[in-house]
Formats: sequence, C-alpha cells, structure tokens
Amino acid sequence: MKKNTGAQLALYPAPVTVVGAMVNGKPNWTLVAHAGVMALSHLMLSMVKAHYTNQGIRENKVVSVNIVDASWLKEADRMGCISGNKEDKSEAFAYTIGEKGAPMIDAAKVSIECEVEDIYDLAGFDNFICKITGTYVDEEILTEKGKVDYRKFKPALFQFPTYEYLETGDILGPCMKMN
Amino acid sequence: MKKNTGAQLALYPAPVTVVGAMVNGKPNWTLVAHAGVMALSHLMLSMVKAHYTNQGIRENKVVSVNIVDASWLKEADRMGCISGNKEDKSEAFAYTIGEKGAPMIDAAKVSIECEVEDIYDLAGFDNFICKITGTYVDEEILTEKGKVDYRKFKPALFQFPTYEYLETGDILGPCMKMN
Repeated sequence: MKKNTGAQLALYPAPVTVVGAMVNGKPNWTLVAHAGVMALSHLMLSMVKAHYTNQGIRENKVVSVNIVDASWLKEADRMGCISGNKEDKSEAFAYTIGEKGAPMIDAAKVSIECEVEDIYDLAGFDNFICKITGTYVDEEILTEKGKVDYRKFKPALFQFPTYEYLETGDILGPCMKMN
Repeated sequence: MKKNTGAQLALYPAPVTVVGAMVNGKPNWTLVAHAGVMALSHLMLSMVKAHYTNQGIRENKVVSVNIVDASWLKEADRMGCISGNKEDKSEAFAYTIGEKGAPMIDAAKVSIECEVEDIYDLAGFDNFICKITGTYVDEEILTEKGKVDYRKFKPALFQFPTYEYLETGDILGPCMKMN
C-alpha cells in the first residue's frame, strides 16, 4: 500500500560527482549528485547559485564532472563540507587540465569535460546545460571496444532522503533483452 | 592512466524509471533513465520527441515517474522495447490515478507525480522540467520519519555504455560525515 509522503525527493541512488572549474585562476571543486543526462550529448548539473565553483563555470563556460568511487569517496565528501568562498580548495586534488581547459581529478577513473551552453535558472539554482566534449577514462576500466566497463568500475552513489552513500551492485541483466 | 574516449556518456549507473502519462484517454508508459533532480523541487526527464508518451505529457502537463526494482524489471524493460505509436500499452500495468491525474504503476514501490512546468528543447529531445507534487511510497520501505529507506528499497540501475541493468548495493557511509 502506497502513501503520499508529499513532494519528497526520491530519484535515487544517483552517481556522486565532484564538479571542477577554474575560479579566479585556480581549480575549485564541489560535490554534486543532482545531475542527469540530456539528449544523448549533454549533461545537466544542478548547483545552488551560492557555490564558489558556479562563478568559475559562469565565467569560463567549461567544467569537469569527476565520477567518484569508494577509493576516493572520503576526499570527495570533504568537498561538500567546506566552501571555496571561505577556504582555498585548490590543493585538494592532483589534477590535469583537459583539452577545453577544465581541471580534472587524477584520482577519478572517469572525468567528463564539458562546455556550458546554457544556464536554466530555477529556484536559486544554476542548472548548467553542458555539452560533453570529452570523456577521460582509466584504461583499466575500458572494455575492448573502448566503453566504460561497469563490471569493473563501481561508482559511489548518493541518496538524499536519509543522506547516505551506497555501492554500485552486481549485474541484473541486459537492457531491452529481459523478455 | 586516463585516455580521452571522445564524448562518451558516462554519468551512470542511474535509476531506471517507467514514465507514465495519459495519452488520448488511456495510460501509456515508456522506459526512461536519462533524468535528474533539479533544484530541490523538480525533476528533469529527457525523452526523445518521437515517444508516444510525450504527446500526452505535452497535452496534459502531468506525468508519473515510477522507480523500478528487480521485482518488476522484466515488465519495465518491455516498455522500452515496444512503442505506444504501434501497440496499445494501456493494459501493461495495474495503476492508480494520482491527485494530479497521472497514472501510477501499482507494482512500483515509489511513484513520483509531477506537473510539467516547462520543456527545454534540445537535439530532438523534450527535456521536461517537472515540479514534484507528490511522492507515493510503499509503507514497507518508509523509515519512521517517513523517508524512503534505501536500506530496504533497492532500485534497478541503468548504464548506457554496455547497456546493462545493475543492482543497488550496500551502504558505504553517511554523507558529509566521512571525515
């Protein structure tokens, strides 16, 4: 029996990411899990306007989305606890600059570099509409065909209602071939 | 060592949902995993314009997002294999009409009802900007405080690169308290 619990957020679990951008000439990082694929070419990143990182994204129109796994979850989590408005986070991670100029975290096995095409303004959030320009993947988690292998790569996942991280579990089956 | 694999989609795994809407007076359903939370109040659903379901969403501005778990994954998967343009899907699921008029799947332990406030047009996709109006949750997966309990509820997850479904795994730790 289902009960209407009100307008509860419940589209989870979702991959945890650390979003990176250059702000005033230095890399800055923030924790983001409210994001999604748009069309087959873009990402939407929903980030409260007050974030220091947002300033750099608005200015440079380039951003990285670094997918978190258990190996660096603790360091990623810290990026949600401190603000770049108050503390310099530029030393938090070893990083590499992507082809478009976004700082990408070396510890992340997958870093997606994007150009920001638009900002959809909603309820105090910048919802960045980002065109994916490059997906940088650790060679050890690529399939023979060059795709990300989620049998080897296990992103950490986030859920908002009771505020915990979860593991990516095992394979349930092939899409569009379950019948 | 990371390698640039091109503009590969890699923000996964993501919850699999079946989106429901009334189309020409009957419920219709389609499989959607390209979605995300916007602000703390909305969902973005990215759905190719040709979907039959999109007609009903554009017309009625009301939609349901039904979170899939392993118990009905096979039935959900079928909604991605057949098109409402060719086949009547109205008998596919037992359903209940929500307060705003969207059909919600009884087998889903979580169904989110939304009003569509806007459509962001991109690359042949309707990206529906949906205000959450009610979250209907099976009482057996609610915490004492009325939140969805992801220790009990294990959504099925989707990944695009090699096109498989995955399980939601175990708890890794509390958010913002890993340090």
